[in-house]
Amino acid sequence: MVTSSSRLAAAVNPLRDPRDKRLPRIAGPSGIVIFGVTGDLARKKLMPAIYDLANRGLLPPGFALVGFARRDWTNENFAKIVHDAVREHSRTPFSEDVWRHLAEGFRFVQGAFDDDDAFDTLAQTLLDLDRVRGTGGNHAFYFSIPPGAFPVVLKQLKRSGLCEPHGEEWRRVVIEKPFGHDLKSAVELNSLVGEVFPESSVFRIDHYLGKETVQNLLALRFANQLYEPIWNNNYVDHVQITQAEDIGVGGRAGYYDGIGAARDVIQNHLLQLMALTAMEEPVTFKPNDLRREKVKVLSAVQLPHDLASGSARGQYAGGWQGASKVLGYLEEDGISPDSATETYAAVKLLIGNRRWAGVPFYLRTGKRLGKRVSEIAVVFKRAPHLPFSRSDTEELGSNMLVIRVQPDEGVTIRFGSKVPGPAMEVRDVSMDFSYGQSFTEASPEAYERLILDVLLGEPSLFPQDREVELSWEILDPFEKHWARAGSKLEQYEPGSWGPASADAMMAKDGRKWRRP
Amino acid sequence: MVTSSSRLAAAVNPLRDPRDKRLPRIAGPSGIVIFGVTGDLARKKLMPAIYDLANRGLLPPGFALVGFARRDWTNENFAKIVHDAVREHSRTPFSEDVWRHLAEGFRFVQGAFDDDDAFDTLAQTLLDLDRVRGTGGNHAFYFSIPPGAFPVVLKQLKRSGLCEPHGEEWRRVVIEKPFGHDLKSAVELNSLVGEVFPESSVFRIDHYLGKETVQNLLALRFANQLYEPIWNNNYVDHVQITQAEDIGVGGRAGYYDGIGAARDVIQNHLLQLMALTAMEEPVTFKPNDLRREKVKVLSAVQLPHDLASGSARGQYAGGWQGASKVLGYLEEDGISPDSATETYAAVKLLIGNRRWAGVPFYLRTGKRLGKRVSEIAVVFKRAPHLPFSRSDTEELGSNMLVIRVQPDEGVTIRFGSKVPGPAMEVRDVSMDFSYGQSFTEASPEAYERLILDVLLGEPSLFPQDREVELSWEILDPFEKHWARAGSKLEQYEPGSWGPASADAMMAKDGRKWRRP
Repeated sequence: MVTSSSRLAAAVNPLRDPRDKRLPRIAGPSGIVIFGVTGDLARKKLMPAIYDLANRGLLPPGFALVGFARRDWTNENFAKIVHDAVREHSRTPFSEDVWRHLAEGFRFVQGAFDDDDAFDTLAQTLLDLDRVRGTGGNHAFYFSIPPGAFPVVLKQLKRSGLCEPHGEEWRRVVIEKPFGHDLKSAVELNSLVGEVFPESSVFRIDHYLGKETVQNLLALRFANQLYEPIWNNNYVDHVQITQAEDIGVGGRAGYYDGIGAARDVIQNHLLQLMALTAMEEPVTFKPNDLRREKVKVLSAVQLPHDLASGSARGQYAGGWQGASKVLGYLEEDGISPDSATETYAAVKLLIGNRRWAGVPFYLRTGKRLGKRVSEIAVVFKRAPHLPFSRSDTEELGSNMLVIRVQPDEGVTIRFGSKVPGPAMEVRDVSMDFSYGQSFTEASPEAYERLILDVLLGEPSLFPQDREVELSWEILDPFEKHWARAGSKLEQYEPGSWGPASADAMMAKDGRKWRRP
Repeated sequence: MVTSSSRLAAAVNPLRDPRDKRLPRIAGPSGIVIFGVTGDLARKKLMPAIYDLANRGLLPPGFALVGFARRDWTNENFAKIVHDAVREHSRTPFSEDVWRHLAEGFRFVQGAFDDDDAFDTLAQTLLDLDRVRGTGGNHAFYFSIPPGAFPVVLKQLKRSGLCEPHGEEWRRVVIEKPFGHDLKSAVELNSLVGEVFPESSVFRIDHYLGKETVQNLLALRFANQLYEPIWNNNYVDHVQITQAEDIGVGGRAGYYDGIGAARDVIQNHLLQLMALTAMEEPVTFKPNDLRREKVKVLSAVQLPHDLASGSARGQYAGGWQGASKVLGYLEEDGISPDSATETYAAVKLLIGNRRWAGVPFYLRTGKRLGKRVSEIAVVFKRAPHLPFSRSDTEELGSNMLVIRVQPDEGVTIRFGSKVPGPAMEVRDVSMDFSYGQSFTEASPEAYERLILDVLLGEPSLFPQDREVELSWEILDPFEKHWARAGSKLEQYEPGSWGPASADAMMAKDGRKWRRP
């Protein structure tokens, strides 16, 4: 079997030359155990990403996927579930050859998280796989489960010895957010995980960090001469970081209520994007160098003196969004009609260092907004002097550099250009770079990149315990302020850009939110 | 008639509100006399531009056009010639109404330049026009004639008193290049013109300066915050200014031979583009403020120590250009087979000031090159440090900002972006701004803008005597060096990018010409 697999890998990548460093590294022998394998994430993201990695020749012949759940499935049932998920959601074309070999490494273990026997069976299954499939004793445990289940699963991994590699083997744990719901719970969670796995074996997934545009932010800033000289408070007026969804809470009500927009998005995605936008140049892009810079920025964050006017939140009301009649948050299934959970949150942050002093970073996220979009907009000051007549620059806005994280990944620069004609009239125009149009290379899904990095033991794109705790230190005061402020939240129209207080927050500073 | 004309002007611009400063100014009562009206320039550029201005409602009802030439034409013959030129070359649609009124102001005066009677007739014609057409005694004399004919025409304008306005009237002279063939002749020409017209009434046409993109260079630099901070020798490695034609000398042989590429293009177009690229911010865009800055830059130009290695020139050879068999320059009709006139010239210049010290400006122009293109490429230094692995930046070039003067007017920024995939590989990509796609306003032809400016007495876009003389001071040493270097010129292939010595000139500095 190993022979035929090697041939298969060779067939997938006939041109691979291991001396070419630019070719992607292939994962070594390894397996992934998914806890919560019956959930949406596993079906829509993890299974397709694993198949796509196999199809791209990035998984080793000795790879295995083990599902763990309470469901009464056989290995064949499980394989069928993965098959359907792959057919429906994978990015690359379906290949029978790739599939057949990949599926030979599938196993399903039935059981509850508090069931010692099930974990013993799991341990035996992994041993068998090491023997017949050649996974080499290297296993990643993927927690696609509610945080409440973390302690019991961690305890089982410890009890059964699954967390402990022998010799050259490795064991890693992959955790999906939320990484706690405040600083205290995050510290507890980190310490709980830390009792079972060393921090170097903990991979916290923030799938935004797997996106090409986010990584391109580093290339944009540090491979070029053009941007870094103006990337500071001499030239930048402020930065707006936006993650907007046009949908409501949907099937996530159970998870979402009590968590809210700030904990769900600002604490992880938006603060990570802010850290990458604002950090100093790392010595290298190696994990420790990169993390040191992110930690430095997060440590330097200063909150606005007045949390009330330096933040905003709200809940989407019911009404018409485009041609659809939609429910308000408080009317959604599974949401208590007096819920104080926000579906929109915006905060203003400052960074206390020489580069950014005086430059506010405005972070906002929400559901049922005008458009699905994630972007970082660096808004520059106006030119210090305009040798134009006033009427000629009436239509001139601020220069802007916008990094579009999704959709239509790319970069836009907005600047003033002369309007054709006899006057020296200036108006804003855009230059545009689009990832999709500029590269024939397709952008892999964030999960492909991140799962491969877990198997390679490459932690650059995963937030570390200290980053997570710092992020909660930043968010906690806002959450406390909001909790004191009462439980009746401002409503905003579906399809709008959030509550009036969010606009007021900017207007007070003489600024405006971008309409992406 | 005046009444019906006023109605016509109102009909053309029903929405014009004179209080709106952004609307273009309309020329006052005036006439243009074209000397050399039977030539190509008059037919292909001047007549169509005058019609287009009329069609845009920018000429007054009291406007007249007078042709002066030896040809035995009647007013009707002349009107027919203008009509055909307009139908063939004008930018805007043909309107019978506009045409009919415009043509009522056409006159033709037959005569030679040394014919006193003809100029007396011209004087009488203009007086008649002032009376019946209402041109108000305001007349521009357009010299679309060989420089050899300047002295006699100037003498006639003086003798006949045509150069002298009465009271509030104005008289202006419009001169097409070449403005001399070296410093000495330019000074002579300026003094000759200066005896007849004050410098404030002299309009030297460099039609490149009428192009929208050239004027946009000022908007780009001074209306924005993005570019000026990096527009200096901390960040710029060098600048390349290119004017390339894909055609040969064609019907211009008689004019071109003995003049050559450097005098024809570098002395005027390219040095003006360089001045606008390199100058400091003017106090305003008023003519004197703008000229002061251009003069300052031109005065600061330093020549390379070694003119031989800091310049290159050549002649196009015969051969295949694409699918066409073309003649070499020495084989062209009207060119002496031992001509020492260059059809390609490149020079390296330095600017001795704090902003540009150490940043070479490379200027090149040529005929029968790979492509018709004019552009200014600001090439930036590499980032001072690249925290990437060497192999990841192998395909990363220098950042560049390219202002495309023609064709496809616009701006391109070239920078490095991450290639999609697991490695941090960086490759050059482009962002693009295109005038045509960004503005619904059509770009007027350079001659429309410039003729209107002559009639408005708006001299910003016309090089002044001092600029012309400074430009010759810069070029003369190269011309003298080339004259000493001998008469056998290096040949280059048609459709190539010039002689090998031009590439060697850059290679010596560790640089390369851009392939536009």
